[in-house]
Amino acid sequence: MTAPEAAAPDPECLERVFLCRVLEPGDVVAGRWLREHGAEEVARRLRADLRLPGVTDRRWAGLRARAARAEPVRDWESARAAGVRFVWPRTPEWPAQLDDLGDARPVGLWVRGTPSLRVWALRSVAVVGARACTEYGAHMAATLSAGLAERGWVVVSGGAYGVDGAAHRGALGAGGATVAVLACGVDRPYPRGHTGLITRIAEQGLVIGELPPGEHPTPSRFLVRNRVIAALTRGTVIVEAAHRSGSLVTARAAQRLGRHTMGVPGPATSGLSAGVHELLRGEAVLVGDAAEVVELVGDMGELAPDRRGPVVPRDLLEPAARRVLAALPGQGAASVDDVACGARTTEDEAVARLYELRSLGFVERHGDGWKLTRQAVTAPRQDHRRC
Amino acid sequence: MTAPEAAAPDPECLERVFLCRVLEPGDVVAGRWLREHGAEEVARRLRADLRLPGVTDRRWAGLRARAARAEPVRDWESARAAGVRFVWPRTPEWPAQLDDLGDARPVGLWVRGTPSLRVWALRSVAVVGARACTEYGAHMAATLSAGLAERGWVVVSGGAYGVDGAAHRGALGAGGATVAVLACGVDRPYPRGHTGLITRIAEQGLVIGELPPGEHPTPSRFLVRNRVIAALTRGTVIVEAAHRSGSLVTARAAQRLGRHTMGVPGPATSGLSAGVHELLRGEAVLVGDAAEVVELVGDMGELAPDRRGPVVPRDLLEPAARRVLAALPGQGAASVDDVACGARTTEDEAVARLYELRSLGFVERHGDGWKLTRQAVTAPRQDHRRC
Repeated sequence: MTAPEAAAPDPECLERVFLCRVLEPGDVVAGRWLREHGAEEVARRLRADLRLPGVTDRRWAGLRARAARAEPVRDWESARAAGVRFVWPRTPEWPAQLDDLGDARPVGLWVRGTPSLRVWALRSVAVVGARACTEYGAHMAATLSAGLAERGWVVVSGGAYGVDGAAHRGALGAGGATVAVLACGVDRPYPRGHTGLITRIAEQGLVIGELPPGEHPTPSRFLVRNRVIAALTRGTVIVEAAHRSGSLVTARAAQRLGRHTMGVPGPATSGLSAGVHELLRGEAVLVGDAAEVVELVGDMGELAPDRRGPVVPRDLLEPAARRVLAALPGQGAASVDDVACGARTTEDEAVARLYELRSLGFVERHGDGWKLTRQAVTAPRQDHRRC
Repeated sequence: MTAPEAAAPDPECLERVFLCRVLEPGDVVAGRWLREHGAEEVARRLRADLRLPGVTDRRWAGLRARAARAEPVRDWESARAAGVRFVWPRTPEWPAQLDDLGDARPVGLWVRGTPSLRVWALRSVAVVGARACTEYGAHMAATLSAGLAERGWVVVSGGAYGVDGAAHRGALGAGGATVAVLACGVDRPYPRGHTGLITRIAEQGLVIGELPPGEHPTPSRFLVRNRVIAALTRGTVIVEAAHRSGSLVTARAAQRLGRHTMGVPGPATSGLSAGVHELLRGEAVLVGDAAEVVELVGDMGELAPDRRGPVVPRDLLEPAARRVLAALPGQGAASVDDVACGARTTEDEAVARLYELRSLGFVERHGDGWKLTRQAVTAPRQDHRRC
């Protein structure tokens, strides 16, 4: 699932690429069409002007106009050439938790970066907040995210200035895993000032989005994007948000989806903490450091790591992940550098695989290095047969 | 209930003054004796060496030694001469909510200051926190307390350095009502550096404590005192507290007593907010200003003030309170100065009565002044008969 497939895509895949161009993210009326008729039939009707229910004439005409301009084969091929893959509900990389969005589920996701989105998302936390944050907010976002990365968690954010950027940088700086969920095409880093950061995230982590290459962000796209951040992760931490901030939309989406919602407190005198405090008066849980976040979002295995073993047999792993696993010593920890060297791959690829293996229970972080979990060491190696 | 009675005290009163010298505050074994045998019988047994159950020989001997030294008549007379009155469960000024403490209920309270403790306590909130607070903590304590005072609420605290002092000063500075609950004799301001502040509180508000005149504070007396602060008030606000801080004892006591527990958030990086954040992760409610505190502790009348009228007929008021009520104009607000002048009394006395009348629903604060509530104006004046 790393390199975009060389073969021609599945017919449903191409129809979903087409629908990505035609439908706005989060359109629940269109989501209902997809649920009731399937992507191929919805695409056929849009092309053939066979009216679907629940939209005005004007809206239908708008969709038809977009449909007339869409070039799905070109979109798919140019994305593939740019190292961008298209992940949709029947592909193995699709994160099943996005199905919790119901009719607001994305039609598909465009993905830049090596790791498996599905596996990374299993152990991920969103860290989001104000663009115009204070130094305190930036400090907290970076520290929390570095701490999450050190505990083997993937940090998901929106790539924006302020808290989002500090969260991504905190994770990257700790040699960790991070995912940027954009409200525009993944080939078009936004904001422009974060071009370098987003490029770096695509190398060491993942840059994803619902909108096809070339699409611009709009205010409503930012808000709608937030539901993907909320649904993808086990919980959302809000670090600074004013009243009526977009981050509160993410927090409320997380609450509705049954995800953990957390807030970092700040001075009661700070307008940029007012929105967080509003959440903390409701369902959200106050967190002050990464350990508290992990205590909340971690499963039992997190609190008692010795009780959990790998959940996937070793030889169901992809070859690249198996090579990284084989590069870890039987005892003690190894640096990413040593692991990359032993697995004959790059450090970024090694980090990508190590966080996948962490999600699957084979390895854990140990300071700056990585080591096998006790189960990965002691489990009988009877897994060379497929089971 | 203002001036200490000139007549000789009730026999139970003198026995309770005696027991105040002999028993340590918060002694639940002794509290059980009092509940089962009454104060007079417990005092008789202590004097006659008729052993009571639940204490070691050594502890009994200690109580007997204290009993031998106690001089209740002298205590009562010297307190009276110093303007200190003794309030105990059968006196009209006893705040009934202290009975919620069960066997840890104070034997009695020593009170300095003009207002009625019982009436003031009806609309009171505790604001407590760290002695070594930050500037942020002092600012929040003072601002919250000024805001509570402006809304007609009485601010209760412990008279200590830091948050407590800022809370008292905030209330005093807003021309408001404040009560200091000491862990030593009320004639012996502690800490010494707060002698001026505590003297001012005794003039404009109330200084109270369980320990008889001359007694010193000890670490355990501070902790035990906190239950009185918690029980007396409708809720406790914690402004800055480190982990394992004494203020958390007050907060937990408030929770056990079913009072509202509130915390002011601070930066997650501040050790002096760590204890508050611990509370906020539990049952405590996050508050950032006085309006939020009042929203929580206020009764329905607070949210919809027009719905509530005075709860006591006008001519059951004390003469001093009636004179203050009569000095308020039928329309609009008057300053404390004008009210004091009209009632032919001092400003401190006028403030004391105005907060009593506020607790009873006759008046409300209006900016810096005071005015009659709508009910006090429109209610038919048919209350000249006793009902």
